[in-house]
Amino acid sequence: MSHNTFGHLFRVTTFGESHGPAIGCVIDGCPPGLAIAPEDFAADLARRATGRSRHTSQRREADQVEILSGVHGGRTTGTPVALLVRNTDARSKDYDDLADVFRPGHADFTYQAKYGIRDHRGGGRASARETTMRVAAGVLAKRLLAERFGTVVRGHVAQIGELRPARFDAAAVERNPFFWPDPDMVPALEAYMDALRKSGDSIGARVEVVAHPVPPGLGAPLYGKLDAELAAALMSINAVKGVEIGDGFAVVAQKGSGHRDAILPGGFASNHAGGILGGISSGQPVTCAIALKPTSSLRLPVDSIDSDGRPVSVEVKGRHDPCVGIRAVPIAEAMVALVLADQYLRHRGQCGEPAMERPDR
Amino acid sequence: MSHNTFGHLFRVTTFGESHGPAIGCVIDGCPPGLAIAPEDFAADLARRATGRSRHTSQRREADQVEILSGVHGGRTTGTPVALLVRNTDARSKDYDDLADVFRPGHADFTYQAKYGIRDHRGGGRASARETTMRVAAGVLAKRLLAERFGTVVRGHVAQIGELRPARFDAAAVERNPFFWPDPDMVPALEAYMDALRKSGDSIGARVEVVAHPVPPGLGAPLYGKLDAELAAALMSINAVKGVEIGDGFAVVAQKGSGHRDAILPGGFASNHAGGILGGISSGQPVTCAIALKPTSSLRLPVDSIDSDGRPVSVEVKGRHDPCVGIRAVPIAEAMVALVLADQYLRHRGQCGEPAMERPDR
Amino acid sequence: MSHNTFGHLFRVTTFGESHGPAIGCVIDGCPPGLAIAPEDFAADLARRATGRSRHTSQRREADQVEILSGVHGGRTTGTPVALLVRNTDARSKDYDDLADVFRPGHADFTYQAKYGIRDHRGGGRASARETTMRVAAGVLAKRLLAERFGTVVRGHVAQIGELRPARFDAAAVERNPFFWPDPDMVPALEAYMDALRKSGDSIGARVEVVAHPVPPGLGAPLYGKLDAELAAALMSINAVKGVEIGDGFAVVAQKGSGHRDAILPGGFASNHAGGILGGISSGQPVTCAIALKPTSSLRLPVDSIDSDGRPVSVEVKGRHDPCVGIRAVPIAEAMVALVLADQYLRHRGQCGEPAMERPDR
Amino acid sequence: MSHNTFGHLFRVTTFGESHGPAIGCVIDGCPPGLAIAPEDFAADLARRATGRSRHTSQRREADQVEILSGVHGGRTTGTPVALLVRNTDARSKDYDDLADVFRPGHADFTYQAKYGIRDHRGGGRASARETTMRVAAGVLAKRLLAERFGTVVRGHVAQIGELRPARFDAAAVERNPFFWPDPDMVPALEAYMDALRKSGDSIGARVEVVAHPVPPGLGAPLYGKLDAELAAALMSINAVKGVEIGDGFAVVAQKGSGHRDAILPGGFASNHAGGILGGISSGQPVTCAIALKPTSSLRLPVDSIDSDGRPVSVEVKGRHDPCVGIRAVPIAEAMVALVLADQYLRHRGQCGEPAMERPDR
Repeated sequence: MSHNTFGHLFRVTTFGESHGPAIGCVIDGCPPGLAIAPEDFAADLARRATGRSRHTSQRREADQVEILSGVHGGRTTGTPVALLVRNTDARSKDYDDLADVFRPGHADFTYQAKYGIRDHRGGGRASARETTMRVAAGVLAKRLLAERFGTVVRGHVAQIGELRPARFDAAAVERNPFFWPDPDMVPALEAYMDALRKSGDSIGARVEVVAHPVPPGLGAPLYGKLDAELAAALMSINAVKGVEIGDGFAVVAQKGSGHRDAILPGGFASNHAGGILGGISSGQPVTCAIALKPTSSLRLPVDSIDSDGRPVSVEVKGRHDPCVGIRAVPIAEAMVALVLADQYLRHRGQCGEPAMERPDR
Repeated sequence: MSHNTFGHLFRVTTFGESHGPAIGCVIDGCPPGLAIAPEDFAADLARRATGRSRHTSQRREADQVEILSGVHGGRTTGTPVALLVRNTDARSKDYDDLADVFRPGHADFTYQAKYGIRDHRGGGRASARETTMRVAAGVLAKRLLAERFGTVVRGHVAQIGELRPARFDAAAVERNPFFWPDPDMVPALEAYMDALRKSGDSIGARVEVVAHPVPPGLGAPLYGKLDAELAAALMSINAVKGVEIGDGFAVVAQKGSGHRDAILPGGFASNHAGGILGGISSGQPVTCAIALKPTSSLRLPVDSIDSDGRPVSVEVKGRHDPCVGIRAVPIAEAMVALVLADQYLRHRGQCGEPAMERPDR
Repeated sequence: MSHNTFGHLFRVTTFGESHGPAIGCVIDGCPPGLAIAPEDFAADLARRATGRSRHTSQRREADQVEILSGVHGGRTTGTPVALLVRNTDARSKDYDDLADVFRPGHADFTYQAKYGIRDHRGGGRASARETTMRVAAGVLAKRLLAERFGTVVRGHVAQIGELRPARFDAAAVERNPFFWPDPDMVPALEAYMDALRKSGDSIGARVEVVAHPVPPGLGAPLYGKLDAELAAALMSINAVKGVEIGDGFAVVAQKGSGHRDAILPGGFASNHAGGILGGISSGQPVTCAIALKPTSSLRLPVDSIDSDGRPVSVEVKGRHDPCVGIRAVPIAEAMVALVLADQYLRHRGQCGEPAMERPDR
Repeated sequence: MSHNTFGHLFRVTTFGESHGPAIGCVIDGCPPGLAIAPEDFAADLARRATGRSRHTSQRREADQVEILSGVHGGRTTGTPVALLVRNTDARSKDYDDLADVFRPGHADFTYQAKYGIRDHRGGGRASARETTMRVAAGVLAKRLLAERFGTVVRGHVAQIGELRPARFDAAAVERNPFFWPDPDMVPALEAYMDALRKSGDSIGARVEVVAHPVPPGLGAPLYGKLDAELAAALMSINAVKGVEIGDGFAVVAQKGSGHRDAILPGGFASNHAGGILGGISSGQPVTCAIALKPTSSLRLPVDSIDSDGRPVSVEVKGRHDPCVGIRAVPIAEAMVALVLADQYLRHRGQCGEPAMERPDR
C-alpha cells in the first residue's frame, strides 16, 4: 500500500539495504495451514541469485532464509511470517569513492533529494538486493495459488537487445542461464553477452510472464483492477520502464473487430485481452510483459556531479549484471503471484470462494 | 487503496453506474484553502465529454457538477469534497437485448463471474462514464499542483492505428477534436475516422502525458514508487493495455551507455528515464505513455454466449466511440495529477515540504 | 482507515456538513446479492432522528435516502452503494453570531487550529448530523450479519446522570423515547429530562450494546483486534469519552480467579470478557459500553474567545439535545455492526467462512 | 491498519512469537535524520521488562535490539527501520501440558477457532512478549515528538485493586517497581503484592498516560479522530478492557455546564476534554486512562476443556505477573506516542507543519 508494504490482505513488508547486516520481509495475512520450510525458498532464490554464471554479477550471497515467526510444526499459523537473510558478500569499499557522487541512471540523486541522507553502499535500499525478499515472499504466494487452483506462474526472457527467440520451447527456459525459450539460440546469446561484458556496456531486456489457471473473478473495479495492480507490481521492480497486459502496445494499431476475443460455448476463441476484462480475470491465462532498462552501472565513464554540484566523471567498479533483465524473471513471477494471492483473498472476503468453472455453468 | 478508492492522503472514492441516477466522487484529504467553484470543472469535463464532435459517442450529458460538501466560502475546508453529476442522457433500452448476453471484449462476463449479478445497462460500473469523476477529481489535484509548484499536466494523442504525428506543435493539441499535435494531419485524420466509423469498426490509440515542473523527491521505495503508482493509475483507465515511463519499451534494445542520463552542473543532459529514478522524481519532466485498445462495442457481429452458455451473435447498437483513446487524454492527465498530488502530500508528511531546487544546492 | 473512511473490506466513506446541501456515504466492498431498498433505512434513521419527542433537538429532517448506485433489481451488485440524504431543516441563521466565536466543548477551536478555515454553521462536519450516514451504512452491515449468522445488534441506555435502570426488560427498550430498559422508571426519567431542559443544562449518559450471535474467530492480532476496532469505532462517535468491553473498568478491582471465564463442555460459564479473547471473538455475546458527555451547546452563558483572541460570552441558541447519549443508541449499534461486518469479510478473506460452532467440535 | 501493522504514515509492523527464535518490528515512514542507536532502546525496554523485581514474571530476557536496516551513520534514512530481538529465556516445556488445552481467559480458544492451528508455547503471538516491539518502536516515536514539539509522554499506575494513590508525586513514579505516584504507599503496595503472589491470584490495574505539549490540530474527522485512534491503540494492548479520554466515564453523571472547558484569552480554564475536541487536539495535555484485567494464568485450578471438548482442570505453571497492569505503563506510553507521531505526519501531509501556538494568534 505505502512505502515498503505491498498488498492488502496478503501483505508483504520488506526491509534492508544492499550492504546492511540483513534483508528481510514480513508476510502478514497468509492463510493458516500452508506447509513451508526454510529449504522451500532455495529454488527460486537460486534462480534470482547472482554469481551462478559468468553472465550475472559475481557477488555470491548464501541467501540462507531463516524463518523467524508465523510457522509452527511446519505450517503457517496465520500470524506474520518473518523471513531473514543475512548479507554475507557485500563489498562496501567498492563504493567508498561514490559516497558523495550521484551515479547517473541510479537513485542516488533522487534519494538525496527526498531524504537529505542516504546509504550509498551498493545502492542501499534502492539495490536489486531487495528483490530477494520479493522472491521469497512469492514462494508462499505461489504455494497458496498452486494449492488452491493449481496455478503455475512462469516467466521467460522474450528479447535481449535486438535478439528475439525464433521459437518457444517451454522446457528449454530453465535449462540455460538466460531463461531463454529457444535452445538453438543459446550459443549465440552467450557470445553476445560475452562481447557485451568485454565492452563494458549493458543491454535491456523484455520479460514475459504467464499465470494459468487463474479462476475467473479476481480483481475489482476500479482502482483495484487486476491489471492495474499487476502494472504497479511489475513497474515497482528495479529497472522496469514499461508494462503490457495481453497484446499491450500492439493494440494501438489494432481494429476492434480483430482485437476482441469472441466467446464460444467451449470458451474464449483467442486471448488478446491477456486474461483480464474490465480489471477482472476471465479464467484465461493472465499474460503480461515488462521492459527492463540496461544497467547504468558501467565501467565506461559518464558525466555527473558530486554532492556539492561540481562536475565529476563516474566509473562504477562494483560487480554488476550486464543485463539485469535476465534475473528479473523470478522477480516478475513473484510479483504476479503476490498480486494474484492478494486478489484471491480479497475476492474471497467480499464474494466467497471463487469458482474455477465459467460463470455460465 | 482498494476497490473504488484511489490514493492515500489525497484519496478519491468514486461511485455510480453508466445508467444509474448519478455518478459522483468523494475527495478526502484535500488540503484546506484551495479555491474551487462548480464552474471550475467545466473545461476538463468538456474535453472528456462525448457528443462534442462526430468522432465520439453521441451521448450528450450535461455533466453539471454539484458540490455537496467540503467547500465553504469558495474554498476547500479540509473535509471531504463530494461531487455529484446526474446522468441525463442514458438510453437504457439500447441494452435490453444485452441483459443476458456477454459482449466480447467487455466486462460483462467477468462481472458476472465475480459478483453473480450485474447492472448490464451501458456497462454499469465498468462504463467509461465513471471517468467523468476521475477528471473532476483531477481538477482539484491539478489546482493543488499548479498552486504549489506551477505544475502543468498535459496529454496528447501520439498515435491512432498506424498514424503518427509528423511534428509536435503543443499549441495545436487543443485545437482539434483528436488532441493531435500535428495540425497538418488533421484533415487526413478526419477522413480516416469518418471511414472507420462508416465501416463499423474501431481503432486503438497511444496517448502521452507530461507533467512539468515536478519537484524532485516525490515517490517512495519500494511499493510506493512514483512510476509504480503511475502505472496502476493509468492501467486502471478503461481500455488501457500498456504503460510506459520515459523511453518505455524502447529500452529493451538500448545499451546502458546510451540510456543513462548524464548529470551536468546545470541539470540532466537528457531524459530517457522520464523524470523518475529509483521510483522517485528527479525534477525533470515526468513522461508517460499508454496504449488503448479499440472499442469492442461494434455493430459488426461477433460470436458470443448468453448467460446459459448458448451461442449467440452480438451486434452492439449503443452509441460508442470509434477510438476511445482520444477522450482518454484528459482522463490520463487527471490520473497523473492525482498520483502526483497524493505523492506530494505523502512526501510532505514524511519529509516536510519538497524543495523545487536541486538537492546539490 | 483514514480521515473519513471506515473499514477495510466493508468500507464506508461519509461526507457532508450539518448545514450543507446534503450528507451521504459510499459503502464499498459490500457483498453482492443483499436485498436493499430505500425504505429499509427508515426504521433505524427514525430511531436516530431528532424532533420525534420533546426530549431531543427539534430539528426535523426528512432523512429521505436516495440510493445513487450499487443496487440493481433490488440487490447489491458488489459495486459501491452510494446513499444521499438532502438536508431540509437547517437553520443556518442561528449560527450567524458564532461565525467568529469558538464554542467551548465543541470542535470550533480545533478545526480552526487544524485547517485555518471552517464551516461554522451547525458545527459543519463535526456535527452529529453526520451520524445519520453511519446509521444508514449500518443498516447494510446489520443485514449482512443477520443473513449470515442471525446476528442481532441491540443497544440501550444504561445510565443518565445518576439514574440507572433497576431492572432490564429488553422489550421495553424500544417503547420509550429513552431506549430505557426499565419501564417503571420512564415517568421519572421524563420528569428528570423536563426539569433539565428547563434549566438550560444537559447531562451525560451511558449506552450499552450487545451483538449476538457472533461467530468465533472474528478479529486479528494485534492491531486488528476486534476490541481495538470496536473501541475506535465507538470512540469516533460524537461526545464519546470512554469505551468498555465486557467488564470494562470494573476489572481494575477484580482478581484473576474471579475474572477469567471458565470453559465447560457446553460452553463458557460466564462472560466477563465480553465475548472477545486475545482480540478475537469467542462466540459469546460481544458486549460493550460507552460514556457520552453532556452537550456543550447550552443557552447558559460560558466564557470563550473570538477568532481574534478577545474574550466573549457564548450562549448557544440552536436546537440541541439535552442528553445526546439517548440518540447514540442506534449510532453505536451501527458502528458495532460495521466493525463486525468488516471483520467478517476480512476473516473470510484470510481463513474462509467462519464456523458458527465451537472449534472443539 | 490491518492485522499486525499499526499506523498510516508512521507505520509499525511487528512479528514474532513468545517462544519463537525472535521478535521484531519494521518501522516504515519514519522521517529521515533522527539520531538513533541500539542502546537508545535500553531504558524503555528495561521499564517494560520482566524479572527486574519480584513483583513481575521471573522470565529474564536480554532484550538486546539489533538494528537491521534504515539507519546510516547513526541517523534514520527514511527507509524501513527493522529491529530484531532474539528470545533467550523461553521455557517451552512449561507449556507441554497445555498444547491441547484451552486456558480460560486466554486467546488459546479463539486462535484455534480462527486459524485451526496455533503455537501454544507461551501464548505464541498473543503473548505480551510482543509488546517489547511496541515499546521499541515507541522510542522512535517519542524521539520524533520530543525533537519537534518537546512532547513528553508519561504514564503511571493509578489504581491496583482497590488501592488508589493518595497524592501525585511525578518524581516518585520511576522510583518504585509499581510506577506508583504516591511514595508513602509503596511499602503497603509491596505487602499487598507479596500477599497476592502467595495466594496464587492476580489483580487488575488502572494506568493513566499524559502527553504534553501536543500541538493543536492533530487528528482528523471522523474515522481518523485522535481519540478514536488512541482508543484502538490502547485497547490493542494485552489485557486492556476499557479506555477513557479526559474525564472518561465520569462524564455520564456530569452536566454540560460543568463539563465544557471555558476558553480564556490565556488558554483553556480546565481540561475535562482530555486535550481533544471533535477528534482533534486542542493544545492542552492529552490525557487517557486504561483498565487492565488481572492475569488469567494462575496456579489456582480452573475448569476448561481440551481440544476434543472434554472437561479438564487447568493449572498454569509458567512464570507470570500477578498484576500485568504495572508493566503496561511503558507500553501505553509507546502506543500514545505512536498515535501522535502518525497523526503528526498525516497532519503535515494534508495541512503542513502544525503550529505550536494557538489558532487565534
